Amino acid sequence: MEPARSEGTGAPCLVILGGGQLARMLALAAVPLGCRVRCVETHADCPAAWVAPVTTVPSWEDVPAVVSAVGPEGVVTLENEFIPDGTIEALAARGRTVLPGFATMRRIRDKFLQKTTLADAGLPVPAFAPVAGPEEIRARGASWGWPVVLKARCHGYDGKGNATLQGPQDVEEAWRRLGGPSGRALYVEAFCPFEREIAVQVTRGRDGRSVVYPVVETVQRNHICHHVLAPARLGGPLAARAAELAQAAVESVGGVGTFGVEMFLGAEGALWINELAPRVHNSGHYTIEACECSQFENHVRAVLGWPLGSVRMRAPAAVMVNLLGRTAGSGRVRGLEQALAIPGVHVHLYGKSRCAPGRKMGHVTVLGTTVEEAWARAEEAARAIEFGVGSEEE
Amino acid sequence: MEPARSEGTGAPCLVILGGGQLARMLALAAVPLGCRVRCVETHADCPAAWVAPVTTVPSWEDVPAVVSAVGPEGVVTLENEFIPDGTIEALAARGRTVLPGFATMRRIRDKFLQKTTLADAGLPVPAFAPVAGPEEIRARGASWGWPVVLKARCHGYDGKGNATLQGPQDVEEAWRRLGGPSGRALYVEAFCPFEREIAVQVTRGRDGRSVVYPVVETVQRNHICHHVLAPARLGGPLAARAAELAQAAVESVGGVGTFGVEMFLGAEGALWINELAPRVHNSGHYTIEACECSQFENHVRAVLGWPLGSVRMRAPAAVMVNLLGRTAGSGRVRGLEQALAIPGVHVHLYGKSRCAPGRKMGHVTVLGTTVEEAWARAEEAARAIEFGVGSEEE
Repeated sequence: MEPARSEGTGAPCLVILGGGQLARMLALAAVPLGCRVRCVETHADCPAAWVAPVTTVPSWEDVPAVVSAVGPEGVVTLENEFIPDGTIEALAARGRTVLPGFATMRRIRDKFLQKTTLADAGLPVPAFAPVAGPEEIRARGASWGWPVVLKARCHGYDGKGNATLQGPQDVEEAWRRLGGPSGRALYVEAFCPFEREIAVQVTRGRDGRSVVYPVVETVQRNHICHHVLAPARLGGPLAARAAELAQAAVESVGGVGTFGVEMFLGAEGALWINELAPRVHNSGHYTIEACECSQFENHVRAVLGWPLGSVRMRAPAAVMVNLLGRTAGSGRVRGLEQALAIPGVHVHLYGKSRCAPGRKMGHVTVLGTTVEEAWARAEEAARAIEFGVGSEEE
Repeated sequence: MEPARSEGTGAPCLVILGGGQLARMLALAAVPLGCRVRCVETHADCPAAWVAPVTTVPSWEDVPAVVSAVGPEGVVTLENEFIPDGTIEALAARGRTVLPGFATMRRIRDKFLQKTTLADAGLPVPAFAPVAGPEEIRARGASWGWPVVLKARCHGYDGKGNATLQGPQDVEEAWRRLGGPSGRALYVEAFCPFEREIAVQVTRGRDGRSVVYPVVETVQRNHICHHVLAPARLGGPLAARAAELAQAAVESVGGVGTFGVEMFLGAEGALWINELAPRVHNSGHYTIEACECSQFENHVRAVLGWPLGSVRMRAPAAVMVNLLGRTAGSGRVRGLEQALAIPGVHVHLYGKSRCAPGRKMGHVTVLGTTVEEAWARAEEAARAIEFGVGSEEE
């Protein structure tokens, strides 16, 4: 898989911890720049394995296995936030460059610490507080007003590890469901009366300089990103303010690489930072076709210490729609040809061998002259594509 | 490298004969569409090996080895025209789908047969004739006027296998140099008094429908493509005529997939077809960023029988400049960061471990509002990048 004489090219090596679709798209962006890419994963059958060699490890906690799999050369980066602190620290302790770095990851992975870091930097976040038990949650609800959101400090994603509590009657069940009684660290946030959710990708280089992608609108269904509209339909000053906040947020955690910054937009232009993702982000997949330099290429440039590319959009508008699994079954795709027949549709399939309801199986992007026009074509394409239907019988 | 449970995705498989930069870029375009890609090459250390598993064969003439390397599944395609007829025929005889097909390849690989096919279809080509010896060459020169071009019927590329003869005094030496005395089949063409060279990519589907990319201007230095300007600076009617000719040329050979059609543009808008390449072509690399669907993605769509994508340009102009080796040495790159610092520069490195004068090591593409403006940035980027300089000492 790797060139026998890689020393001939002197190619920089990028080692990605994780082998999902983000690693796959990072590899597709890194190779044209002359990078050799290797991935480390817990299972060999992963999306990145189609384009890069994957070394498997028994678990992310198995530090000697991860250190050995990472190998002796290259810059190490992460495609998800589930690699344990101890593992990243162990790599750093062996002198390996891991970006984003340990300190950044620690401040982001623990969402309470993340909020604290953002608040300390003067950035707008919803009111939040640690909670040690149901009583404290009820007290916060009484003081901030209901609803409040109970969240796991670590390992939450796509709505998992979150509960919105409408009143004191919801507290006990959520506390139990999120693992409070067994000692899982939780915290509580005031509910943001948001009208829309927006997101911004920021890529920050090793030298601290950063570029900010256009502000986009993200629409979630069942807590999973359903589609993304670029640019967000906002006034110029509001978009500029969101871009500034996103840049400052990544600065506050000392991030290097591409970060997704999710925000709530309230009535009359109020903005709160909801969450920082220390990696390329679903809300930035549109940049592959829509921006001069994608979030993936800029991540590679950033972690390798290269100049960042232009984030300018190539079209007035772009819409990305996720291809989410509807049923459990194989990863076999149906309707691809129908989708490809729609003009200007860019299909990205992740090559997952199993489908599950809500699982991200791929996405489509359409560029257009208006968000509305691109959206119509993207939705049509996404509706055409299905996974796993009837495939078990074949 | 391949997913352990590829049957889970039901992914179509594309087997590429050849593992050079064209195979590499085909693989980069095929994977997002959910295709598994495998390459067959004579050496493991090839550009495509960075993104796809490569099975090596001792030679392209070793039919059993190639058949075994191709394996039992997938559509077979070619990234170069040097696979022997017998090998392609053997695959077809075993029921494998090979596209472009045997009949197309045979009509293109032999340039005399290619010219005959084009002429028979009523398409404009320079006067041409088979020659059995120096005497016949001199006779053609006397009848058509000098210069004339002596060409090998097969296996010529980048100016190799061609000689321009200014008069009878040049005949003997060229006849010897091109291998006439040892029986290599040669033919002679009238010299086209061209002012510029243009090229057009055509992708033709299995159903015979085709799409035609914008006409581009190609500039050769030492018979090697140096840069490509898109679109060509031609009047609309002339561009439309070139597009029509290109489409008809691919039709005439029954091509399926992406083809590069090279043409000569003479004074007062005369057009002659110079050569057909039965594959994605250097003059179409600009389409990766500049067109909605690249020549690579459309090739994949065509050979898999899928609908073809839009060939519309995303910007008013684009310029591609080849990164050609200047010296012999390693493939180690210098100046990449300097090139990446220029706004809007897209760098594509091919990962070749050895550099040689004139060897295609990569290319850069820049999109712009005018050809002139994009050209300036692309040339600046290409000048910054060097290969193999001083690398032997490291």
